[in-house]
Amino acid sequence: MSRVIVQKYGGTSVASPARIWRVSRRIAESVRSGHPVVAVVSAMGHTTDRLIDLARRVSPAPSARELDMLTANGETITAPLVAMCLQAMGVPAISLTGLQAGVRTSGHHSKARIREIETQRIRAELDAGRVCVVAGFQGVTESMEITTLGRGGSDTTAVALAAALGAPSCEIYTDVDGIYSADPRVVARARKIAHISYEEMLELAAVGAKVLHPRAVELGELYGVEIHVRSSFKKGVGTMIVAQVPMEDRNRVRGVAHESNVAKITVRGVPDRPGVAAALFEPLGAASISVDVIVQNVGLTGATDITFTVDEGELAQAVALVQEANRQIGAVEVLSSGGLAKLSIVGTGMLGTPGIAARMFRTLAENRINIEMISTSEIRITCLVDRARAADGVRALHTAFELDVK
Amino acid sequence: MSRVIVQKYGGTSVASPARIWRVSRRIAESVRSGHPVVAVVSAMGHTTDRLIDLARRVSPAPSARELDMLTANGETITAPLVAMCLQAMGVPAISLTGLQAGVRTSGHHSKARIREIETQRIRAELDAGRVCVVAGFQGVTESMEITTLGRGGSDTTAVALAAALGAPSCEIYTDVDGIYSADPRVVARARKIAHISYEEMLELAAVGAKVLHPRAVELGELYGVEIHVRSSFKKGVGTMIVAQVPMEDRNRVRGVAHESNVAKITVRGVPDRPGVAAALFEPLGAASISVDVIVQNVGLTGATDITFTVDEGELAQAVALVQEANRQIGAVEVLSSGGLAKLSIVGTGMLGTPGIAARMFRTLAENRINIEMISTSEIRITCLVDRARAADGVRALHTAFELDVK
Repeated sequence: MSRVIVQKYGGTSVASPARIWRVSRRIAESVRSGHPVVAVVSAMGHTTDRLIDLARRVSPAPSARELDMLTANGETITAPLVAMCLQAMGVPAISLTGLQAGVRTSGHHSKARIREIETQRIRAELDAGRVCVVAGFQGVTESMEITTLGRGGSDTTAVALAAALGAPSCEIYTDVDGIYSADPRVVARARKIAHISYEEMLELAAVGAKVLHPRAVELGELYGVEIHVRSSFKKGVGTMIVAQVPMEDRNRVRGVAHESNVAKITVRGVPDRPGVAAALFEPLGAASISVDVIVQNVGLTGATDITFTVDEGELAQAVALVQEANRQIGAVEVLSSGGLAKLSIVGTGMLGTPGIAARMFRTLAENRINIEMISTSEIRITCLVDRARAADGVRALHTAFELDVK
Repeated sequence: MSRVIVQKYGGTSVASPARIWRVSRRIAESVRSGHPVVAVVSAMGHTTDRLIDLARRVSPAPSARELDMLTANGETITAPLVAMCLQAMGVPAISLTGLQAGVRTSGHHSKARIREIETQRIRAELDAGRVCVVAGFQGVTESMEITTLGRGGSDTTAVALAAALGAPSCEIYTDVDGIYSADPRVVARARKIAHISYEEMLELAAVGAKVLHPRAVELGELYGVEIHVRSSFKKGVGTMIVAQVPMEDRNRVRGVAHESNVAKITVRGVPDRPGVAAALFEPLGAASISVDVIVQNVGLTGATDITFTVDEGELAQAVALVQEANRQIGAVEVLSSGGLAKLSIVGTGMLGTPGIAARMFRTLAENRINIEMISTSEIRITCLVDRARAADGVRALHTAFELDVK
């Protein structure tokens, strides 16, 4: 078989019959290139939200299994509509549910993992000259139970199909035209990044760049599938997510990310003994509260301070759980504050380049932005700052690291 | 396993979250009887129409395969909502797609026939104490292609499941509370029929009683499943469709049906040779125009007149096709007229009871209603009359055959 093109179209791209028509025209153009095409589609616009709203109106706490049965309809509505539209344009096409596309998953409802993709059916349809329009976000277990893949599910479906079909790349069509060096709504001179590495993309996603879910990026890295993030509304190339960025881009900060709505909790005077951190964080995990940056300073007195961040919307619940946990732990006090934001700089070349961290801290200081907390990975430095100064900080860092479009 | 209760809830009964709640409460009551319960559900309200409208907006002529993929979502949205609602009431329940419920069909998209039902999954769920909420109207072929069953599909699913599970009866919950001796909107004194035979129900359906699709009735007759038609809004028994009605009801006219929007076409002076009728009706069949009552009078002159009825909305197209066909046939002329209605009396005991036909014709004559055409089956007599007089005719016949509620 000739090289398969795998494309994914998000909910905004298929939100109306007119947009489905536009997406279909783009698929038809790809077909004209002579390659077999697989198009993975999401639910139209707000369909999933509307289905979940229906669920809430019949049950205060719908089971994950039934929610999966319900929400899977979003994508199985879009897929036949796109297939019909292609047929109306004279392009042979067939829609496939997750089951028909061979997407086999674990049984973890609402957050299933893809176990394997049985490609016989898709290959047969492609061989017969048809575009396969696959309902994203869903699969089935061995016992024919319908599952959904959770956040970023359709992206994951697309990258997994590309891997299973031996496609060298996967095109993610979305409502932005690529990955930017900073949020263009904040930084007017943000630049579109031509190539970014999987690790850089993962770090950017972890600190607020929402374009692509980390699962899809990880899968791309694991199977060597390059991911092309591009606009479904505009022509032109977007951003390629690859293993190796071009040499000249390597020793650089690639982007500045920020995330607002951050709050922090500090547990002061934690007795320094094994099991304390587990006792602190397990109740938060059980309550599905996502804990982000964690910093621990071991002091000289046998006690330590642990600080971590949570989404500000979950602060009150998190503080209550931590205070509850502290009855066993016996730390001195639990402090919390909201109104914070995270600023991060990301780039694989960073740690090999001396002075990057210093330049970040100096830039913030020159702009009188106080740093409340610092956390680093190999290719990222994150500072917690006052939310009111976050946008200024992003712009200052973007300029300081020479990312501004000239 | 204890005797299984199979119920079916139509689109009006599940049109909103509030109605789904009411349906679930009724299912919960049945569960309290101690029997395992299978509930077959239709698409909510106008969901199917809305999906078909979406299809028309992306394609002038969507393929039957893709329309099936699309419309099957209507029922697979309702089923998990009902299951969630039951769970919220503390009733263990699980929703099943046609595939999961084991409904295997032929591959005729949009009008598939049920081939068999593999009941292992449903039996296992019932054994585990769960209500099975099954998406009606759909099934899958051996190659996992999704099919829909066409008109009356969910009724057919319910009766087929009752047959496969060895249930002696099947309850069809709908927006009317039973089968009436005439349309209550026309005949104020129409009575609800307690028992009606499968054949009587089939004849009534054929002449305009739309409550239940003939396919479901035929299936019930074939497998000896009694069908209980009842209201999902009101309490109380409805109408039982059975093999044998109670003795005292047998030698009677059971109901008066009428159907408006009827037009007739007469082909005069048709040469009396083999193949003429086929040449006349094949083009109509190919154009999906449903031909109803057909009457042929063979004359003495070697020529004959053929008259038949069609839906008035299809009259113009039908006349054009018949005139086209007549170029080969060489009949004298093609006449047509609209503005007609069919009046029918139905009852298994009719032909064994002398004078019924005469009484029908006399009643119409006394009311100065002219009969344009007569057609009979073993248990039905149908007259074609002026549409403007149809309601008067129904009322007169209802009184004449002693059907009025006292």
